[in-house]
Amino acid sequence: MNESKVLQELQRALPTGRLITEPAAMRPYETDGLTAIREMPWAVALPGTEDEVREVLAVCLEHEVPVVPRGAGTGLSGGARPVQGGLVLGLSKLNQILEVDVDNCTARVQPGVRNLAISEAVAEHGLYYAPDPSSQLACSIGGNVAENSGGVHCLKYGLTVHNVIGLKVRTIEGDVLELGGKGLDYPGYDLLALLCGSEGMLGVVTEVTVRLLPEAPQKVVLLAAFSTLESAAGAVSRIIGEGVTPAGLELMDQLTLRAAEDFAGAGYPKDAAAILLCELDGDATEARALQRYAVRLFEEEGAYDVQQAESAEQRERLWAGRKAAFPAVGRIAPDYYCMDGTIPRASLVEVLRGISELSERYGLVVGNVFHAGDGNLHPLILYDANQEGQIELAEGLGREILELCVGVGGTVTGEHGVGVEKLTPMCAQFNAAELAQFERVKEAFDPARLMNPGKAIPTLTRCAEYGGMHVHGGELPFPNLDRF
Amino acid sequence: MNESKVLQELQRALPTGRLITEPAAMRPYETDGLTAIREMPWAVALPGTEDEVREVLAVCLEHEVPVVPRGAGTGLSGGARPVQGGLVLGLSKLNQILEVDVDNCTARVQPGVRNLAISEAVAEHGLYYAPDPSSQLACSIGGNVAENSGGVHCLKYGLTVHNVIGLKVRTIEGDVLELGGKGLDYPGYDLLALLCGSEGMLGVVTEVTVRLLPEAPQKVVLLAAFSTLESAAGAVSRIIGEGVTPAGLELMDQLTLRAAEDFAGAGYPKDAAAILLCELDGDATEARALQRYAVRLFEEEGAYDVQQAESAEQRERLWAGRKAAFPAVGRIAPDYYCMDGTIPRASLVEVLRGISELSERYGLVVGNVFHAGDGNLHPLILYDANQEGQIELAEGLGREILELCVGVGGTVTGEHGVGVEKLTPMCAQFNAAELAQFERVKEAFDPARLMNPGKAIPTLTRCAEYGGMHVHGGELPFPNLDRF
Repeated sequence: MNESKVLQELQRALPTGRLITEPAAMRPYETDGLTAIREMPWAVALPGTEDEVREVLAVCLEHEVPVVPRGAGTGLSGGARPVQGGLVLGLSKLNQILEVDVDNCTARVQPGVRNLAISEAVAEHGLYYAPDPSSQLACSIGGNVAENSGGVHCLKYGLTVHNVIGLKVRTIEGDVLELGGKGLDYPGYDLLALLCGSEGMLGVVTEVTVRLLPEAPQKVVLLAAFSTLESAAGAVSRIIGEGVTPAGLELMDQLTLRAAEDFAGAGYPKDAAAILLCELDGDATEARALQRYAVRLFEEEGAYDVQQAESAEQRERLWAGRKAAFPAVGRIAPDYYCMDGTIPRASLVEVLRGISELSERYGLVVGNVFHAGDGNLHPLILYDANQEGQIELAEGLGREILELCVGVGGTVTGEHGVGVEKLTPMCAQFNAAELAQFERVKEAFDPARLMNPGKAIPTLTRCAEYGGMHVHGGELPFPNLDRF
Repeated sequence: MNESKVLQELQRALPTGRLITEPAAMRPYETDGLTAIREMPWAVALPGTEDEVREVLAVCLEHEVPVVPRGAGTGLSGGARPVQGGLVLGLSKLNQILEVDVDNCTARVQPGVRNLAISEAVAEHGLYYAPDPSSQLACSIGGNVAENSGGVHCLKYGLTVHNVIGLKVRTIEGDVLELGGKGLDYPGYDLLALLCGSEGMLGVVTEVTVRLLPEAPQKVVLLAAFSTLESAAGAVSRIIGEGVTPAGLELMDQLTLRAAEDFAGAGYPKDAAAILLCELDGDATEARALQRYAVRLFEEEGAYDVQQAESAEQRERLWAGRKAAFPAVGRIAPDYYCMDGTIPRASLVEVLRGISELSERYGLVVGNVFHAGDGNLHPLILYDANQEGQIELAEGLGREILELCVGVGGTVTGEHGVGVEKLTPMCAQFNAAELAQFERVKEAFDPARLMNPGKAIPTLTRCAEYGGMHVHGGELPFPNLDRF
């Protein structure tokens, strides 16, 4: 392509200063939260209006420039990593809250609005936006849609897909799709759900309508200490199985709870083999009833100590250790690798045992801290990148952990997305027909394959090389699909 | 096509007696629950195994025979109506419950299993399957997936898409797609959500994994009587806005509550302008707390009478009138036409007033009975098909009611599907770019366009004729799409 001509056209589509091409100025865009993998973008565009988005996309389509949409860059799987010769389309300037509809409990916002900013804007009405990824201070709602983000409270209140009721999407071909809205269950194929978690590969989200929830009048956080990991896991299965859905239900094993306690002084019992943190909420009477029920249940399941935090200050103290768990583990090892598999809840004990065996086999310590209620594991593999071979060992162990998750019917990623990080594990998750179907759906939105190429869906060649897929006589099942 | 050759091949793919071609024997398949529109199928296949499904689809693909998948035939929008020269693929013989996983609270079943049969099969474990369309005695889970069915309790427990966690799908090209499973949030594009509500147009569902819920230990049903429709609607907005989610929240206006009372003797106050039926559930203490709260709220919003049904017998009596509402209205008019729009909850009063004005203008009586909590209206238009012109009047009034729903940001169908019935109203719901995008998604699954052609998504020609779409100089925006 004629680079200077394309740059000129992009320049014309954007206000002064909103097209970045200086390497020094583009450095912050080299990577998202997955900092190990960097790539200098060809250029960065920062449109401030929908019209500017449309014009930038039109220029990219005409000149076949790959487009990598980017929110706040907090993603953990490299979904917003630049591609060689591609444009990063930063959506941070589209940061207006367009409408708060108190009567219908909804808000319509631009994609660059930060997750927490929505709750802050509607707090005066006693409302909030439920999904709360740990990056919620910084991450933006457009990125949340792209990754279908979760958080501690998604056990009770659902993932992004369950809290986003409308999307306005601009396809690279220039079409505007208005999906969903304030009514229930829109007809036609459910493209809204399809866009959630599509990692910027189908189109650019330019508006998001979210459901707001009324703040629960009463919240309680319980800490239950167990002398075995198995009994903590058993308590998780039982509380969910009996139909009580805590607002959050987190498990930390001994390694992580000790690290967190040393770091944050949250009051965790350091002799426990595992602790559960359980938040219950509702109307005052309802929350009290749930609290009594859960305390009794934890005791019956073998908890030797149950702390009950009712004031906001006490609750925040108990959560502080959990929230600090990742940096706390970062203090006790030079490096760690955070996994993100999900498993059917009843397989918790089996999988934790398997992880422990793998940990011994690889000679690397693994800490476990996770959203236990919905079976979303975050094993933290500790290693030292300065010791030769340890990166490869950590990656091998990580891959085996994810295969273990898939083996019991779970997934290779719960809430962090596939991005570039989990392309290979995706070969264990899906067969050739399923991957080919994903490609055809992609083609239905982006036939030129310019939207965030090389992310989320592995090519069949890659899977064949990995060995995760059956290859007959050197022929790939769908050779024509493997075109990028 | 060489009909006898194709029939021979289908015969070979199926056991004796499972290919029906006699007109008399095919009569039950001429229509689904939308009995006004009939079409004799070319043939009916009743496979009993997944292999037979695969072979039947292969024959149809080879000879370009359209395929209409069919569950129990209870659908209300004609989604399973045969197409001319097409095969009806009846899935009623795939009726096995394959697995009940009590630990993970899931069941894996074949598509022909009846909705209620799932709850019956797991009742011994204290579990049930939540979505409860009023046809739940007869309708099958495969049909529920196709239409994304709701029911009285979907306000709290979600639609089919929120309760189905896994699907096995056979495409017409012979691929098997295993979508979702027992873990949380599977990666890749969300094809599971895409299939839910796709009305049999993307593939044939051969297995469904559903989430089971523990039966709530305590249930209460409240009946609140109001002297104006507005105050009943106001109470709905307030209870939801304050964060209480009843298990069900139904509104009946005077016409329907009187008809229901005369028919079922449920104890409804016949002088009320409107009644709300509100079911609250949970642990005993929780349900009691919600009950006290709701009674107070209804009284504050102007209810002049609140009945509280706690025993199973009392609760069933109150529900009996609601469940009998449609047949009850059927007794007071020769014919009625049931609509199924949704609206943002805060527009309830405005839309009810609009319906009342339309009713006067058309000179046809309209009764209102609906899922008020989630804004899913079911206006019943009363008419007499034997009076000349009344069918057309009823249809015109129905179309205007749906346009009213779309006008306030709602939809033309909440839970009954589009089928053939609402193809024209879909033109008011979606623009040309959105309809074209639907077509491209369809093509990604069924390039030969043999799966249930002519349903759910209107052609652009149809929309142009209807006038719902802007046409420049006689040219359709996407003329090539309009190929069937």
